[in-house]
Amino acid sequence: MYFIEKLIQLIKEKKSVVSMGLDPRMDREGQIPNYLINELNDPNKIITEFNKILMDNTFDLIPIVKPQIAFYEKYDALTALKDTIKYAHKKDLLVLLDSKRNDIGATSEAYAYSTFNVYKADACTLNAYFGIDGIKPYIEGYRQKGLFILVKTSNPSSRDFQDLYSVRLEKGSDINVELEKKSIKLERNYAQMAKLVQNWGRDLRQFSGFHGLGVVVGATFPQELKEIRKIVKNSFILIPGYGTQGAEALDVKYGFNDDGLGGLVNSSRGIMFAYNKNNNYPPEKFGIAAREEIIKMNANINKVIGI
Amino acid sequence: MYFIEKLIQLIKEKKSVVSMGLDPRMDREGQIPNYLINELNDPNKIITEFNKILMDNTFDLIPIVKPQIAFYEKYDALTALKDTIKYAHKKDLLVLLDSKRNDIGATSEAYAYSTFNVYKADACTLNAYFGIDGIKPYIEGYRQKGLFILVKTSNPSSRDFQDLYSVRLEKGSDINVELEKKSIKLERNYAQMAKLVQNWGRDLRQFSGFHGLGVVVGATFPQELKEIRKIVKNSFILIPGYGTQGAEALDVKYGFNDDGLGGLVNSSRGIMFAYNKNNNYPPEKFGIAAREEIIKMNANINKVIGI
Repeated sequence: MYFIEKLIQLIKEKKSVVSMGLDPRMDREGQIPNYLINELNDPNKIITEFNKILMDNTFDLIPIVKPQIAFYEKYDALTALKDTIKYAHKKDLLVLLDSKRNDIGATSEAYAYSTFNVYKADACTLNAYFGIDGIKPYIEGYRQKGLFILVKTSNPSSRDFQDLYSVRLEKGSDINVELEKKSIKLERNYAQMAKLVQNWGRDLRQFSGFHGLGVVVGATFPQELKEIRKIVKNSFILIPGYGTQGAEALDVKYGFNDDGLGGLVNSSRGIMFAYNKNNNYPPEKFGIAAREEIIKMNANINKVIGI
Repeated sequence: MYFIEKLIQLIKEKKSVVSMGLDPRMDREGQIPNYLINELNDPNKIITEFNKILMDNTFDLIPIVKPQIAFYEKYDALTALKDTIKYAHKKDLLVLLDSKRNDIGATSEAYAYSTFNVYKADACTLNAYFGIDGIKPYIEGYRQKGLFILVKTSNPSSRDFQDLYSVRLEKGSDINVELEKKSIKLERNYAQMAKLVQNWGRDLRQFSGFHGLGVVVGATFPQELKEIRKIVKNSFILIPGYGTQGAEALDVKYGFNDDGLGGLVNSSRGIMFAYNKNNNYPPEKFGIAAREEIIKMNANINKVIGI
């Protein structure tokens, strides 16, 4: 079954467009509870157990989880990543590996192989600075999988490069001549990237109007989200930045079509470490606190997008 | 000791600007010799042994090696990566981990931690699509390390995005008004990225005029290399694409200053699997074939850059 088909099915079944980030932290406030760290002692065991309890408490409420591979690399805990993904599949959750890999040729093929055959994710994030050469091994070798290309990221300095005004010129055109003729229409770099994605996805198989080549747009930029939604008509948009990064339900609205499809809203710390924000829950109840947080997120978002 | 200081020292001592890529492959022509694969059977052992023999045969001729992490992930062989880096340090080789990570905040910190504290590399490659938010944790947390930001990559489709003509506007400016006033000067996206790097590196400590924030520019684009050399005055340029990707010594010339400093020329397959190209060497002699190839590369490049 194609990732995108299954995703749409789970969204409809569970009435949820929420992705739960699984970004384990063990080194500061807002982290895996100390009782687990002290009890299990081994990073692979601690992280796997923490993630399992989170999923046990939430699998019926959400279609997908998104582990951020950086944290598993940090704690030298890629076994925990593999075990987490295996467990997610047991619970009928899809897994989007957030890894933002980017390279070309055999190297890109090697990354795709590890994403889908070693870690066994269903989808991943990608950075397309290399152009189509970096994306082709994924599109061609793993048709059924999901891919989410960075377009406009949630951080303030995404403006440094993504917000430059740019133009694509035909081969052989002279930029000065074009400027003189006033035939140039400039658009932001993120919009150019979105257009590339729309173009690359043209011939991919669609389900309910969507193919597996999606994009990433931060919830912190609602106007850009609206603009990008119109460009990538056949792409799902992964929308990070909800909760801890300050965005709310109204901000993500523009990522969705009128039928409530087209977006996935991710929250990581806001869900995983909900027990820290809410004094009603001692650390031992972090799973229940996460469940409560997702129930609230589902209600707030569904009201706005109308599912 | 700072990475960049040590790098310059080793370049002068060994009279070499060559980086040997360590990208193990076990699945096709041009790969780790079968006798090693059959003898050792375990990917971690096979890759570590292959890399050790390569380094034993070449450590006196080059300043640095560049393992591409994608291949270690593919074979689930991150132990081999760690062991390779440890062995390289024993042989007084610097290690540039080619991983092109990119993210923000705590995630970026986690990647930096794994790069320098788990894998223990001396330098790494980075993708700066996120802007300064993605680079800051590296610059601030790991001052002595080396960082190489993707600017113009060696692949044909680098034109898809990196070659767009773009312009940075002051906050509050209107693009149409600016176009009307003809006050706009457009530059390629790769040049904009190079300018960001030059700006971000402004206050970093320098040795012989260079700081640790470098760039990556493909040897397959000599004119762009020349242009970028002028922008990133204080950056080393990592130049991949030599050999297998078709570039030659004359193509890399523009990456260097008149004193022969400023560039690192990487070859991976061309060195590692040199035994395949040259019938004088049976598979068992792959280390000697690699040594011969590096001697040739050093001679050809040094003649052109004048060291």
